[in-house]
Amino acid sequence: MRMSELAERTGVPVATIKYYLREGLLPPGAATSATQAHYDEGHVQRLQLVRVLREIGRVPVANIAAVLEAIDDSGLDLHDKIGTAHHALGPEPPEEPDDAHVEARDDVLAYVRARGWRVRDDAPSLDALAGVLLAFRELSGAPFGPDLFDRYAAAAEDLARYELDTIDATAGVDAAVTQAMVGTVVFEQALVALRRLAEEHFSAERFADDAVARKPLRRRPAPA
Amino acid sequence: MRMSELAERTGVPVATIKYYLREGLLPPGAATSATQAHYDEGHVQRLQLVRVLREIGRVPVANIAAVLEAIDDSGLDLHDKIGTAHHALGPEPPEEPDDAHVEARDDVLAYVRARGWRVRDDAPSLDALAGVLLAFRELSGAPFGPDLFDRYAAAAEDLARYELDTIDATAGVDAAVTQAMVGTVVFEQALVALRRLAEEHFSAERFADDAVARKPLRRRPAPA
Repeated sequence: MRMSELAERTGVPVATIKYYLREGLLPPGAATSATQAHYDEGHVQRLQLVRVLREIGRVPVANIAAVLEAIDDSGLDLHDKIGTAHHALGPEPPEEPDDAHVEARDDVLAYVRARGWRVRDDAPSLDALAGVLLAFRELSGAPFGPDLFDRYAAAAEDLARYELDTIDATAGVDAAVTQAMVGTVVFEQALVALRRLAEEHFSAERFADDAVARKPLRRRPAPA
Repeated sequence: MRMSELAERTGVPVATIKYYLREGLLPPGAATSATQAHYDEGHVQRLQLVRVLREIGRVPVANIAAVLEAIDDSGLDLHDKIGTAHHALGPEPPEEPDDAHVEARDDVLAYVRARGWRVRDDAPSLDALAGVLLAFRELSGAPFGPDLFDRYAAAAEDLARYELDTIDATAGVDAAVTQAMVGTVVFEQALVALRRLAEEHFSAERFADDAVARKPLRRRPAPA
Protein backbone atom coordinates (compact mmCIF):
# COMPACT_ATOMS: atom_id res chain seq x y z
CA MET A 1 0.00 0.00 0.00
CA ARG A 2 1.03 3.64 -0.42
CA MET A 3 1.87 5.91 2.48
CA SER A 4 -1.52 7.63 2.20
CA GLU A 5 -3.26 4.29 2.64
CA LEU A 6 -0.97 3.39 5.54
CA ALA A 7 -2.02 6.65 7.18
CA GLU A 8 -5.67 5.87 6.63
CA ARG A 9 -5.39 2.30 7.93
CA THR A 10 -3.60 3.33 11.13
CA GLY A 11 -5.02 6.78 11.80
CA VAL A 12 -1.46 8.15 11.94
CA PRO A 13 -1.04 11.33 9.82
CA VAL A 14 1.37 11.22 6.86
CA ALA A 15 3.61 13.87 8.44
CA THR A 16 3.95 11.71 11.57
CA ILE A 17 4.75 8.62 9.48
CA LYS A 18 7.51 10.59 7.75
CA TYR A 19 8.84 11.63 11.15
CA TYR A 20 8.87 8.00 12.34
CA LEU A 21 10.70 6.95 9.17
CA ARG A 22 13.35 9.60 9.80
CA GLU A 23 13.72 8.55 13.43
CA GLY A 24 13.99 4.90 12.49
CA LEU A 25 10.82 3.91 14.35
CA LEU A 26 9.43 2.52 11.10
CA PRO A 27 11.51 0.62 8.53
CA PRO A 28 11.50 2.12 5.01
CA GLY A 29 9.01 0.73 2.53
CA ALA A 30 10.07 -1.04 -0.68
CA ALA A 31 10.83 1.69 -3.22
CA THR A 32 8.54 1.51 -6.26
CA SER A 33 9.82 4.72 -7.87
CA ALA A 34 12.05 7.64 -7.00
CA THR A 35 9.31 9.21 -4.89
CA GLN A 36 7.08 6.30 -3.88
CA ALA A 37 7.37 3.24 -1.71
CA HIS A 38 5.23 0.27 -0.90
CA TYR A 39 4.24 -0.56 2.68
CA ASP A 40 2.91 -3.86 3.99
CA GLU A 41 1.07 -5.35 6.98
CA GLY A 42 4.31 -5.33 8.95
CA HIS A 43 4.31 -1.55 8.67
CA VAL A 44 0.71 -1.35 9.82
CA GLN A 45 1.45 -3.41 12.93
CA ARG A 46 4.65 -1.53 13.74
CA LEU A 47 2.89 1.79 13.37
CA GLN A 48 0.07 0.69 15.65
CA LEU A 49 2.60 -0.37 18.28
CA VAL A 50 4.46 2.95 18.06
CA ARG A 51 1.19 4.81 18.32
CA VAL A 52 0.12 2.94 21.46
CA LEU A 53 3.50 3.45 23.11
CA ARG A 54 3.42 7.16 22.32
CA GLU A 55 -0.22 8.09 22.76
CA ILE A 56 -1.28 5.76 25.55
CA GLY A 57 2.03 5.08 27.29
CA ARG A 58 3.52 8.55 26.66
CA VAL A 59 6.85 6.76 26.15
CA PRO A 60 9.57 9.14 24.81
CA VAL A 61 10.65 8.52 21.20
CA ALA A 62 14.19 7.49 22.25
CA ASN A 63 12.76 4.81 24.53
CA ILE A 64 10.40 3.59 21.79
CA ALA A 65 13.41 3.18 19.50
CA ALA A 66 15.12 1.03 22.14
CA VAL A 67 11.96 -1.07 22.59
CA LEU A 68 11.78 -1.71 18.85
CA GLU A 69 15.49 -2.54 18.71
CA ALA A 70 14.96 -5.23 21.32
CA ILE A 71 12.00 -6.64 19.40
CA ASP A 72 14.05 -6.76 16.20
CA ASP A 73 17.21 -8.20 17.78
CA SER A 74 17.38 -11.71 16.37
CA GLY A 75 20.13 -12.61 18.87
CA LEU A 76 17.67 -12.51 21.79
CA ASP A 77 15.25 -15.23 22.84
CA LEU A 78 11.66 -14.43 23.81
CA HIS A 79 12.38 -13.84 27.48
CA ASP A 80 15.36 -11.58 26.81
CA LYS A 81 13.41 -9.65 24.19
CA ILE A 82 10.58 -9.04 26.63
CA GLY A 83 13.04 -8.11 29.38
CA THR A 84 15.09 -5.75 27.24
CA ALA A 85 12.04 -4.11 25.66
CA HIS A 86 10.43 -3.83 29.08
CA HIS A 87 13.45 -2.12 30.62
CA ALA A 88 13.62 0.22 27.61
CA LEU A 89 10.18 1.59 28.55
CA GLY A 90 11.92 3.39 31.38
CA PRO A 91 11.90 5.31 33.58
CA GLU A 92 15.53 6.36 33.43
CA PRO A 93 17.33 5.60 36.68
CA PRO A 94 18.98 8.59 38.41
CA GLU A 95 22.38 9.41 36.92
CA GLU A 96 24.10 9.92 40.23
CA PRO A 97 22.07 8.05 42.86
CA ASP A 98 22.83 9.18 46.40
CA ASP A 99 23.41 6.81 49.30
CA ALA A 100 19.80 6.92 50.41
CA HIS A 101 18.67 5.87 46.94
CA VAL A 102 21.17 3.03 46.73
CA GLU A 103 20.10 1.77 50.13
CA ALA A 104 16.39 1.99 49.32
CA ARG A 105 17.03 0.21 46.04
CA ASP A 106 18.78 -2.63 47.90
CA ASP A 107 15.77 -2.81 50.21
CA VAL A 108 13.24 -3.13 47.39
CA LEU A 109 15.41 -5.63 45.49
CA ALA A 110 15.62 -7.81 48.61
CA TYR A 111 11.86 -7.39 49.01
CA VAL A 112 10.91 -8.58 45.53
CA ARG A 113 13.46 -11.42 45.73
CA ALA A 114 11.91 -12.49 49.03
CA ARG A 115 8.58 -12.68 47.21
CA GLY A 116 10.26 -15.13 44.84
CA TRP A 117 10.29 -12.73 41.91
CA ARG A 118 13.15 -13.26 39.48
CA VAL A 119 14.06 -9.82 38.15
CA ARG A 120 17.30 -8.51 36.75
CA ASP A 121 19.03 -6.31 39.28
CA ASP A 122 19.29 -3.50 36.73
CA ALA A 123 15.49 -3.30 36.26
CA PRO A 124 14.55 0.41 36.10
CA SER A 125 11.34 -0.27 38.01
CA LEU A 126 13.52 -1.03 41.04
CA ASP A 127 14.75 2.58 40.92
CA ALA A 128 11.20 3.83 40.53
CA LEU A 129 10.07 1.80 43.52
CA ALA A 130 13.06 2.95 45.59
CA GLY A 131 12.12 6.56 44.78
CA VAL A 132 8.55 5.97 45.93
CA LEU A 133 9.74 4.37 49.17
CA LEU A 134 12.09 7.27 49.90
CA ALA A 135 9.39 9.85 49.17
CA PHE A 136 6.94 8.12 51.47
CA ARG A 137 9.52 7.87 54.25
CA GLU A 138 10.26 11.59 54.00
CA LEU A 139 6.62 12.59 53.92
CA SER A 140 5.58 10.42 56.82
CA GLY A 141 8.76 10.95 58.82
CA ALA A 142 8.69 7.22 59.56
CA PRO A 143 11.23 4.57 58.44
CA PHE A 144 8.81 2.42 56.42
CA GLY A 145 10.18 -0.73 54.83
CA PRO A 146 9.10 -2.12 51.47
CA ASP A 147 6.37 -4.18 53.18
CA LEU A 148 4.49 -0.90 52.91
CA PHE A 149 3.77 -2.19 49.40
CA ASP A 150 2.44 -5.64 50.34
CA ARG A 151 -1.09 -5.03 49.09
CA TYR A 152 0.13 -3.57 45.82
CA ALA A 153 2.68 -6.32 45.28
CA ALA A 154 0.00 -8.97 45.76
CA ALA A 155 -2.31 -7.23 43.29
CA ALA A 156 0.54 -6.78 40.79
CA GLU A 157 1.44 -10.44 41.09
CA ASP A 158 -2.11 -11.59 40.38
CA LEU A 159 -2.40 -9.33 37.35
CA ALA A 160 1.01 -10.17 35.92
CA ARG A 161 0.45 -13.93 36.27
CA TYR A 162 -2.84 -13.57 34.41
CA GLU A 163 -1.25 -11.38 31.71
CA LEU A 164 1.66 -13.66 30.99
CA ASP A 165 -0.71 -16.61 30.81
CA THR A 166 -2.63 -14.87 28.01
CA ILE A 167 0.48 -14.37 25.85
CA ASP A 168 0.39 -16.74 22.93
CA ALA A 169 4.02 -17.74 22.31
CA THR A 170 3.01 -20.05 19.46
CA ALA A 171 2.19 -17.04 17.26
CA GLY A 172 5.90 -16.28 16.92
CA VAL A 173 8.43 -14.42 19.02
CA ASP A 174 7.83 -10.97 17.53
CA ALA A 175 4.08 -11.19 17.93
CA ALA A 176 4.51 -12.37 21.53
CA VAL A 177 6.88 -9.53 22.47
CA THR A 178 4.59 -7.01 20.81
CA GLN A 179 1.64 -8.43 22.72
CA ALA A 180 3.60 -8.20 25.97
CA MET A 181 4.58 -4.56 25.36
CA VAL A 182 1.07 -3.55 24.39
CA GLY A 183 -0.28 -5.31 27.45
CA THR A 184 2.21 -3.60 29.75
CA VAL A 185 1.46 -0.12 28.46
CA VAL A 186 -2.24 -0.31 27.68
CA PHE A 187 -3.40 -2.09 30.81
CA GLU A 188 -1.10 -0.01 32.99
CA GLN A 189 -3.05 3.06 31.92
CA ALA A 190 -6.33 1.21 32.34
CA LEU A 191 -5.34 0.17 35.87
CA VAL A 192 -4.31 3.71 36.79
CA ALA A 193 -7.58 5.16 35.49
CA LEU A 194 -9.72 2.48 37.13
CA ARG A 195 -7.99 2.89 40.48
CA ARG A 196 -8.63 6.64 40.42
CA LEU A 197 -12.29 6.06 39.57
CA ALA A 198 -12.60 3.47 42.33
CA GLU A 199 -11.00 5.91 44.78
CA GLU A 200 -13.57 8.52 43.80
CA HIS A 201 -16.30 5.96 44.45
CA PHE A 202 -15.07 4.94 47.90
CA SER A 203 -14.51 8.58 48.78
CA ALA A 204 -18.18 9.15 47.97
CA GLU A 205 -19.17 6.10 50.01
CA ARG A 206 -17.23 7.29 53.02
CA PHE A 207 -17.24 11.05 52.93
CA ALA A 208 -20.09 12.44 50.81
CA ASP A 209 -22.72 14.35 52.78
CA ASP A 210 -25.34 11.83 51.80
CA ALA A 211 -23.07 8.88 52.61
CA VAL A 212 -25.15 7.74 55.54
CA ALA A 213 -28.40 7.90 53.59
CA ARG A 214 -26.93 5.90 50.73
CA LYS A 215 -25.37 3.13 52.76
CA PRO A 216 -26.96 -0.16 51.87
CA LEU A 217 -29.20 -1.34 54.62
CA ARG A 218 -27.50 -3.87 56.78
CA ARG A 219 -29.40 -7.12 56.74
CA ARG A 220 -30.54 -8.34 60.05
CA PRO A 221 -29.01 -11.60 61.12
CA ALA A 222 -31.36 -14.47 60.50
CA PRO A 223 -33.12 -15.57 63.65
CA ALA A 224 -31.27 -18.46 65.28
CA MET B 1 12.29 29.02 60.24
CA ARG B 2 14.21 30.78 57.49
CA MET B 3 14.04 29.74 53.85
CA SER B 4 17.45 28.06 54.10
CA GLU B 5 16.18 25.88 56.92
CA LEU B 6 12.97 25.13 55.02
CA ALA B 7 15.15 23.95 52.12
CA GLU B 8 17.18 21.75 54.44
CA ARG B 9 14.12 20.25 56.16
CA THR B 10 12.40 19.34 52.89
CA GLY B 11 15.33 18.67 50.58
CA VAL B 12 13.91 21.22 48.12
CA PRO B 13 16.58 23.70 46.89
CA VAL B 14 16.12 27.40 47.73
CA ALA B 15 15.84 28.30 44.02
CA THR B 16 12.96 25.81 43.65
CA ILE B 17 11.23 27.19 46.76
CA LYS B 18 11.43 30.69 45.25
CA TYR B 19 9.93 29.35 42.04
CA TYR B 20 7.06 27.74 43.94
CA LEU B 21 6.45 31.02 45.81
CA ARG B 22 6.25 32.89 42.49
CA GLU B 23 3.89 30.27 41.02
CA GLY B 24 1.69 30.36 44.10
CA LEU B 25 2.32 26.70 44.99
CA LEU B 26 3.56 27.85 48.38
CA PRO B 27 1.99 30.67 50.41
CA PRO B 28 4.38 33.50 51.36
CA GLY B 29 6.03 33.34 54.76
CA ALA B 30 5.46 35.96 57.47
CA ALA B 31 7.78 38.88 56.66
CA THR B 32 10.32 39.50 59.43
CA SER B 33 12.26 42.19 57.55
CA ALA B 34 12.42 43.67 54.06
CA THR B 35 14.37 40.64 52.80
CA GLN B 36 13.49 37.84 55.19
CA ALA B 37 10.41 35.82 56.03
CA HIS B 38 9.49 33.19 58.55
CA TYR B 39 8.16 29.79 57.46
CA ASP B 40 6.31 27.27 59.61
CA GLU B 41 5.31 23.60 59.69
CA GLY B 42 2.49 24.34 57.27
CA HIS B 43 5.09 25.34 54.69
CA VAL B 44 7.07 22.15 55.31
CA GLN B 45 4.01 19.99 54.71
CA ARG B 46 2.89 21.92 51.64
CA LEU B 47 6.36 21.73 50.15
CA GLN B 48 6.53 17.99 50.74
CA LEU B 49 3.18 17.55 49.01
CA VAL B 50 4.27 19.64 46.02
CA ARG B 51 7.49 17.67 45.82
CA VAL B 52 5.70 14.32 45.79
CA LEU B 53 3.23 15.48 43.14
CA ARG B 54 6.05 16.79 40.94
CA GLU B 55 8.80 14.26 41.47
CA ILE B 56 6.87 11.06 41.98
CA GLY B 57 3.61 11.85 40.17
CA ARG B 58 5.19 14.01 37.44
CA VAL B 59 2.10 16.22 37.72
CA PRO B 60 2.46 19.48 35.72
CA VAL B 61 2.77 22.66 37.80
CA ALA B 62 -0.58 24.03 36.55
CA ASN B 63 -2.34 20.87 37.73
CA ILE B 64 -0.57 21.03 41.10
CA ALA B 65 -1.85 24.59 41.51
CA ALA B 66 -5.40 23.34 40.88
CA VAL B 67 -4.96 20.49 43.38
CA LEU B 68 -3.79 22.94 46.05
CA GLU B 69 -6.64 25.31 45.27
CA ALA B 70 -9.11 22.49 45.92
CA ILE B 71 -7.40 21.61 49.20
CA ASP B 72 -7.53 25.26 50.31
CA ASP B 73 -11.12 25.90 49.20
CA SER B 74 -13.01 26.30 52.47
CA GLY B 75 -16.32 26.10 50.60
CA LEU B 76 -15.85 22.40 49.83
CA ASP B 77 -16.52 19.47 52.13
CA LEU B 78 -14.08 16.57 52.41
CA HIS B 79 -15.58 14.52 49.60
CA ASP B 80 -15.72 17.46 47.19
CA LYS B 81 -12.18 18.47 48.07
CA ILE B 82 -10.91 14.97 47.35
CA GLY B 83 -12.95 14.81 44.14
CA THR B 84 -11.86 18.22 42.86
CA ALA B 85 -8.20 17.68 43.77
CA HIS B 86 -8.33 14.21 42.25
CA HIS B 87 -9.75 15.48 38.97
CA ALA B 88 -7.14 18.25 38.92
CA LEU B 89 -4.40 15.59 38.75
CA GLY B 90 -5.46 15.08 35.16
CA PRO B 91 -5.01 13.88 32.53
CA GLU B 92 -6.56 16.63 30.44
CA PRO B 93 -9.50 15.32 28.42
CA PRO B 94 -9.25 15.81 24.62
CA GLU B 95 -10.30 19.30 23.55
CA GLU B 96 -12.38 18.16 20.62
CA PRO B 97 -13.34 14.55 21.25
CA ASP B 98 -14.46 12.74 18.09
CA ASP B 99 -17.55 10.53 17.90
CA ALA B 100 -15.60 7.36 18.60
CA HIS B 101 -14.21 8.88 21.81
CA VAL B 102 -17.60 10.10 22.97
CA GLU B 103 -19.09 6.67 22.35
CA ALA B 104 -16.25 4.83 24.12
CA ARG B 105 -16.56 7.25 27.02
CA ASP B 106 -20.28 6.47 27.32
CA ASP B 107 -19.38 2.77 27.30
CA VAL B 108 -16.88 3.07 30.14
CA LEU B 109 -19.16 5.33 32.18
CA ALA B 110 -21.96 2.76 31.86
CA TYR B 111 -19.44 0.07 32.82
CA VAL B 112 -18.26 1.71 36.03
CA ARG B 113 -21.84 2.63 36.96
CA ALA B 114 -22.84 -1.00 36.43
CA ARG B 115 -20.12 -1.93 38.93
CA GLY B 116 -21.89 0.35 41.38
CA TRP B 117 -19.18 2.99 41.35
CA ARG B 118 -20.38 6.53 42.01
CA VAL B 119 -18.19 8.82 39.94
CA ARG B 120 -18.85 12.26 38.53
CA ASP B 121 -19.49 12.04 34.82
CA ASP B 122 -16.77 14.65 34.16
CA ALA B 123 -14.05 12.52 35.78
CA PRO B 124 -10.94 12.80 33.57
CA SER B 125 -10.08 9.16 34.21
CA LEU B 126 -13.17 8.26 32.17
CA ASP B 127 -11.53 9.94 29.16
CA ALA B 128 -8.27 8.14 29.87
CA LEU B 129 -10.07 4.80 30.06
CA ALA B 130 -12.03 5.52 26.87
CA GLY B 131 -8.73 6.25 25.11
CA VAL B 132 -7.29 2.95 26.28
CA LEU B 133 -10.37 1.05 25.10
CA LEU B 134 -10.24 2.71 21.66
CA ALA B 135 -6.52 1.99 21.30
CA PHE B 136 -7.00 -1.65 22.17
CA ARG B 137 -9.91 -1.99 19.74
CA GLU B 138 -7.82 -0.53 16.93
CA LEU B 139 -4.80 -2.67 17.69
CA SER B 140 -6.70 -5.90 17.99
CA GLY B 141 -9.16 -5.14 15.22
CA ALA B 142 -11.90 -6.51 17.49
CA PRO B 143 -14.80 -4.58 19.05
CA PHE B 144 -13.91 -5.20 22.69
CA GLY B 145 -16.24 -3.80 25.33
CA PRO B 146 -15.14 -2.40 28.70
CA ASP B 147 -15.46 -5.88 30.26
CA LEU B 148 -11.96 -6.24 28.81
CA PHE B 149 -10.98 -4.44 32.02
CA ASP B 150 -12.78 -6.75 34.49
CA ARG B 151 -9.62 -8.05 36.16
CA TYR B 152 -8.16 -4.59 36.49
CA ALA B 153 -11.39 -3.10 37.78
CA ALA B 154 -11.63 -5.78 40.45
CA ALA B 155 -8.01 -5.15 41.53
CA ALA B 156 -8.58 -1.37 41.52
CA GLU B 157 -11.69 -1.77 43.63
CA ASP B 158 -9.89 -3.86 46.26
CA LEU B 159 -7.02 -1.39 46.49
CA ALA B 160 -9.21 1.71 46.57
CA ARG B 161 -11.45 0.28 49.28
CA TYR B 162 -8.37 -0.47 51.38
CA GLU B 163 -6.89 2.97 50.74
CA LEU B 164 -9.99 4.94 51.65
CA ASP B 165 -10.34 2.87 54.81
CA THR B 166 -6.88 4.01 55.91
CA ILE B 167 -7.68 7.71 55.58
CA ASP B 168 -8.06 9.26 58.98
CA ALA B 169 -10.80 11.87 58.64
CA THR B 170 -10.57 12.77 62.33
CA ALA B 171 -7.18 14.45 61.75
CA GLY B 172 -8.91 17.31 59.95
CA VAL B 173 -10.14 17.89 56.42
CA ASP B 174 -6.89 19.29 55.01
CA ALA B 175 -4.78 16.47 56.42
CA ALA B 176 -7.25 13.91 55.03
CA VAL B 177 -7.25 15.41 51.52
CA THR B 178 -3.47 15.62 51.56
CA GLN B 179 -3.28 12.00 52.64
CA ALA B 180 -5.66 11.00 49.84
CA MET B 181 -3.65 12.85 47.19
CA VAL B 182 -0.34 11.45 48.40
CA GLY B 183 -1.85 7.98 48.43
CA THR B 184 -3.22 8.34 44.92
CA VAL B 185 0.07 9.52 43.43
CA VAL B 186 2.62 7.59 45.48
CA PHE B 187 0.96 4.19 45.42
CA GLU B 188 0.01 4.58 41.77
CA GLN B 189 3.70 4.72 40.94
CA ALA B 190 4.41 1.85 43.32
CA LEU B 191 1.71 -0.24 41.66
CA VAL B 192 3.02 0.53 38.18
CA ALA B 193 6.60 -0.39 39.16
CA LEU B 194 5.55 -3.55 40.98
CA ARG B 195 3.40 -4.73 38.09
CA ARG B 196 6.30 -4.32 35.68
CA LEU B 197 8.60 -6.25 38.02
CA ALA B 198 6.01 -9.00 38.42
CA GLU B 199 5.65 -9.18 34.64
CA GLU B 200 9.39 -9.63 34.33
CA HIS B 201 9.19 -12.44 36.87
CA PHE B 202 6.38 -14.31 35.14
CA SER B 203 8.07 -13.81 31.79
CA ALA B 204 11.13 -15.54 33.28
CA GLU B 205 8.95 -18.30 34.68
CA ARG B 206 7.31 -18.93 31.35
CA PHE B 207 9.84 -18.06 28.68
CA ALA B 208 13.43 -18.14 30.04
CA ASP B 209 15.57 -20.90 28.56
CA ASP B 210 16.00 -22.44 31.95
CA ALA B 211 12.31 -22.12 32.78
CA VAL B 212 11.73 -25.86 32.80
CA ALA B 213 14.74 -26.57 35.01
CA ARG B 214 13.71 -23.91 37.50
CA LYS B 215 10.11 -24.94 37.90
CA PRO B 216 9.48 -25.88 41.50
CA LEU B 217 9.17 -29.61 41.87
CA ARG B 218 5.61 -30.65 42.04
CA ARG B 219 4.94 -32.41 45.29
CA ARG B 220 3.66 -35.90 44.96
CA PRO B 221 0.23 -36.40 46.39
CA ALA B 222 0.43 -37.93 49.82
CA PRO B 223 -0.34 -41.65 49.76
CA ALA B 224 -3.97 -42.29 50.50
